[in-house]
Amino acid sequence: MTLENLITQIGPLDQEAMAAARARQDVLTKPRGSLGRLEDLSIQIAGITGNPRPHIRHKVITTMAGDHGVVAEGVSAFPQEVTPEMVYNFLRGGAAINVLSRHVGARVVVVDLGVAVELEPHPGLVDKKVARGTANIAAGPAMTREQAMRALEAGAEVVENELARGLDILGTGDMGIGNTTPSAAIACALSGLPASNVVGRGTGVDDAGLARKVAAVGKALAVNRPDPDDALGVLSKVGGFEIGGLAGAMLAAAAHRRPVVVDGFISTAAAMIAVGLAPQVRAYLIAAHRSQEQGHRIMLDWLKLQPLLDLDLRLGEGTGAAIGISLVEAACRILDEMATFEEAGVADKE
Amino acid sequence: MTLENLITQIGPLDQEAMAAARARQDVLTKPRGSLGRLEDLSIQIAGITGNPRPHIRHKVITTMAGDHGVVAEGVSAFPQEVTPEMVYNFLRGGAAINVLSRHVGARVVVVDLGVAVELEPHPGLVDKKVARGTANIAAGPAMTREQAMRALEAGAEVVENELARGLDILGTGDMGIGNTTPSAAIACALSGLPASNVVGRGTGVDDAGLARKVAAVGKALAVNRPDPDDALGVLSKVGGFEIGGLAGAMLAAAAHRRPVVVDGFISTAAAMIAVGLAPQVRAYLIAAHRSQEQGHRIMLDWLKLQPLLDLDLRLGEGTGAAIGISLVEAACRILDEMATFEEAGVADKE
Repeated sequence: MTLENLITQIGPLDQEAMAAARARQDVLTKPRGSLGRLEDLSIQIAGITGNPRPHIRHKVITTMAGDHGVVAEGVSAFPQEVTPEMVYNFLRGGAAINVLSRHVGARVVVVDLGVAVELEPHPGLVDKKVARGTANIAAGPAMTREQAMRALEAGAEVVENELARGLDILGTGDMGIGNTTPSAAIACALSGLPASNVVGRGTGVDDAGLARKVAAVGKALAVNRPDPDDALGVLSKVGGFEIGGLAGAMLAAAAHRRPVVVDGFISTAAAMIAVGLAPQVRAYLIAAHRSQEQGHRIMLDWLKLQPLLDLDLRLGEGTGAAIGISLVEAACRILDEMATFEEAGVADKE
Repeated sequence: MTLENLITQIGPLDQEAMAAARARQDVLTKPRGSLGRLEDLSIQIAGITGNPRPHIRHKVITTMAGDHGVVAEGVSAFPQEVTPEMVYNFLRGGAAINVLSRHVGARVVVVDLGVAVELEPHPGLVDKKVARGTANIAAGPAMTREQAMRALEAGAEVVENELARGLDILGTGDMGIGNTTPSAAIACALSGLPASNVVGRGTGVDDAGLARKVAAVGKALAVNRPDPDDALGVLSKVGGFEIGGLAGAMLAAAAHRRPVVVDGFISTAAAMIAVGLAPQVRAYLIAAHRSQEQGHRIMLDWLKLQPLLDLDLRLGEGTGAAIGISLVEAACRILDEMATFEEAGVADKE
């Protein structure tokens, strides 16, 4: 399906299913509203799926990898070879996202959107490489407009393939040395805020590295002049391949009425691109957590999303999304499995 | 074992195990510190258990029930018969705590510490009834000093029995119509703050009910004059049987070097009693969440505990603790299962 077709498929939430879910929450054996955000989540999932008692069985986290020419500006604490090294770590099951996905019963789908080297083939690796890394955004556009479209469509294809294997909820994750820099540039381009408000330390740069990042984002905005009303343009000028892939995955999940749990800083930049392309996708998004990364709060405010967790995470990969998925599953189980006052013979509020 | 013996057994955390856990966190394939509070949690559990790579296999939530004479003051939105009705709901598996325990793989141990009626025997119900409900704290002491000691010892016995079946982590939970009122009174007695700062709406009283609760707590403090330096006295004068049971359970878990995940308002009042009796127990406690109930923040500040979650929960039963247990387990799995930079052949920070 083309991206345009996907976007036109993203409809509003099912108000009838939401009303039925809310009515059921109100007769379960607990004071009304006493499960707070878990109740709200269950109602949102009812609206997304159109099912008043939704089930979350197949949990999928897509961890998308890409490299970034902007590392030439000295914006990361880690060398670029860590991107493929971590991809192999994902494929062997040794990374944080593997451990957390096992813990919550999700499967991890590792996708190469634009790693700078050719990766060894592996049955667990989905090859959607658009190019070998982006160009340096501090000197010109990250990619062509056609490449940006290909990244979006590639991400959507990943989700459509996984739907066939079972996908009731999508978690997003990223890997790419340097990718907090384009993510910050996207946030600046769409929010209009200056680089100094949005740029943070990423994997842990020192003060000099932080200054280089602020300067790199400033140059990227000055050189590329991204138009906030043209999200595809923003992605192509200051984005990244894995960021485009994640945005496309979100659009496809929403088109197929599946909830999306958005991870941290990079995934949230992708969510801004997705919402820029299709504002109605916002209702399908759940923010997993508030990252330790400065600027994430600004992104969440722009998206009008309230994060579920605040655990000082700043790893990416989908680690926060994994925990968030478990909370969404818990919320849906509450709605489905709890006894009502009538069933349990419990007296309601006086 | 007597309570006094238990308390003398509660030692400091194992610094060597904590240092080893911290050193391992620093060589796992992620930027140092990037898993935030999950890293801290894993190090705390290493210190509690004395194991630098601890495993959480047997997860237990003790949900303790009791009734409260103070309901005569009109402090609750629900009638007192809901306490036994909800105990039966727990035993049939239809309550929120059952659903969430199934979700996180914990077993629920339901204990009668002081329900006002005789409960029908059930293989899943642990009978530790001290008395049929407390007396009205607005008119005199909740219980005798001997009864308070019995409640503490009964709670400790529950944990010691469960240790034989396997208990790697304890979650605390409560059921008792009216029990936010004695919990608020305990918080006032130990913190010195007035009732109006601590009392909240519980299961959902209206403004008139809230005023009656504030008045009831004020009367309880004026009539009983609890001494903040005598935690057993505070429990007996303004507490509850299930609150004493939970405090005893915490002391026993700490004595046996098991972590305790403290649920919401009532469990946190029990934690204040436990810390009042044995300040060294504090290091074994993990606050699951910040309750929607006003005053919970005051309790957490007094205990110097930072909650893991902020999901607007206000149900009790151990529901927040169940989710907290899952996070602790995730933290320990991260520490144990992730690959190191060396194992994975990933380059470290430059």
